[in-house]
Amino acid sequence: MKMNIVFGGAGFIGSNLSRKLKDQGQQVLVFDDMSLGTKANIDFLNNDQVIIGDINNTNDINRISAQIETFLPEDITIWHLAANSDIVSGVNDSEVDFVKTFLTTQNILKFMKKHELKRIFFSSTSAVYGDKGEELIKETSSNLHPISNYGAYKLASEAIISAAREDFLHEAVIFRFPNVVGTPATHGVILDFIQKLKDNKDELAVLGNGTQQKSYLHVDDLLSAMLLCEGVEHFERLPIFNIGNIDDGTSVAKIAESVVSYMSPDANIKYGDQPRGWKGDIPRFKYDVTKIQQLGWQPKYSSLAAIKKTITQIIQYE
Amino acid sequence: MKMNIVFGGAGFIGSNLSRKLKDQGQQVLVFDDMSLGTKANIDFLNNDQVIIGDINNTNDINRISAQIETFLPEDITIWHLAANSDIVSGVNDSEVDFVKTFLTTQNILKFMKKHELKRIFFSSTSAVYGDKGEELIKETSSNLHPISNYGAYKLASEAIISAAREDFLHEAVIFRFPNVVGTPATHGVILDFIQKLKDNKDELAVLGNGTQQKSYLHVDDLLSAMLLCEGVEHFERLPIFNIGNIDDGTSVAKIAESVVSYMSPDANIKYGDQPRGWKGDIPRFKYDVTKIQQLGWQPKYSSLAAIKKTITQIIQYE
Repeated sequence: MKMNIVFGGAGFIGSNLSRKLKDQGQQVLVFDDMSLGTKANIDFLNNDQVIIGDINNTNDINRISAQIETFLPEDITIWHLAANSDIVSGVNDSEVDFVKTFLTTQNILKFMKKHELKRIFFSSTSAVYGDKGEELIKETSSNLHPISNYGAYKLASEAIISAAREDFLHEAVIFRFPNVVGTPATHGVILDFIQKLKDNKDELAVLGNGTQQKSYLHVDDLLSAMLLCEGVEHFERLPIFNIGNIDDGTSVAKIAESVVSYMSPDANIKYGDQPRGWKGDIPRFKYDVTKIQQLGWQPKYSSLAAIKKTITQIIQYE
Repeated sequence: MKMNIVFGGAGFIGSNLSRKLKDQGQQVLVFDDMSLGTKANIDFLNNDQVIIGDINNTNDINRISAQIETFLPEDITIWHLAANSDIVSGVNDSEVDFVKTFLTTQNILKFMKKHELKRIFFSSTSAVYGDKGEELIKETSSNLHPISNYGAYKLASEAIISAAREDFLHEAVIFRFPNVVGTPATHGVILDFIQKLKDNKDELAVLGNGTQQKSYLHVDDLLSAMLLCEGVEHFERLPIFNIGNIDDGTSVAKIAESVVSYMSPDANIKYGDQPRGWKGDIPRFKYDVTKIQQLGWQPKYSSLAAIKKTITQIIQYE
């Protein structure tokens, strides 16, 4: 019998992953501190499939032991999706990402080593690449110089996973993905716009000048990629996969227009005058995903389709 | 008036750097916890030019404030050479490198941000590249997957320096260097061999089969490269320099033979049967240093000459 421990399993991506794993008939144990995750996100699990605790608290993480003692270490897979996923909050305070994005990785690795768990799938980010301008970003791109604390601590996490792979891990797969949309969203531009229009139905103020073009991936497409990678044999020591959409993305202006057209068609959209919304944001980048495509993966939704699906999902979800 | 704060300034490389800066007529303040460094290494400094303390202790690092208050922030340069430089000790216990190699970087950056210090020169390592086999290692090499905790936490340090460069740093230069030899050595293969021959003048047991070929740089050559980089204007956002020797290196067998010929010509050298000496070690690699050479730098000593000079220096030093 296989067991999956999903760290951050009550959050946006984690809860979707946990549901899919459960639907596949697999055992799931969610570990989450409920800082961004919620019980409602995982209402499909029983109480004994959820541990509320802090990864960085030894007593808390050790509570997992009792839940996994009937499984062989080699039948246990770790999914590490715990992080401060709200990049903006880490811009001015590096402590947030240090504790939530980096120390979580370190303590998960310690837990794994102690229990001889050897298989981890790690959610990293396209932010590890830094600002690559017009360069096509491949997994093999060089000069990874993150410009946000979030990107830096994710890259730091990758580095210690690499060392652990040499030490005790048998399999470690890293996913680097940019903006993922869907429900239950905890943050992000769509939720932000919806909230602003709720506060003031006549005007939507946009950070930046609206020309920022980004690719967005729907969480369903992200999960099909992650689960595909889980099911195949890898021949690299440390397989890394870019996961992102295959179109040129969509602009902030298009997202703003979509939200306005759903919620308040007469609202006025007010743009800033800078191309970059906030320090550490990367206005536009080209993302190569041919490596994951070569495994047979294709996204179902374009960037704009993913955005529009998410808008309706958020409105329905409430 | 310029001020240099040298973290790890009482250690092997740090004390040599501090001496050179002082010889150039610059102000120097050494900060060191004396875990690997010693007062004897910096006997050329006055007491008020040395702070003994732990970078990770806020009270300790804040003691620097009083020493720098007469300097303008823009006249202060940080040299960060504090680390667990004994890679082997971090192989089985990631905590050592986490605390001494990574948290030191994080806390130095916090201190710099607080005091609006914007200029840092950071000693990283060739270990950030991982095991590249026969690939020529350039600063622009991709897939940096360290195989030691030391390499992982140095790469993690680079990542947060990159984010800090976006946040508040005006200049950050990273040096990646492999094995540096010279005095006052705190660890390493030469010191190890000398100690073994002292313990038993008839036999020298070598980890690995002796074929490991590595390039060694004398600390004098390393410092001429670092000081060169300090004196020129850089046009990259985050300049990174490989610093290493330009020859094909020398083998462990040659080092063993050199130590034996100096100390105990009749001793028997006994080799292991594996090419790799210890987990996390990289038996051989090719290191590209054309970037630093293009600034006009050349090493004075070949790998073997650096080794031989160091052997005589260690023996004289004692």
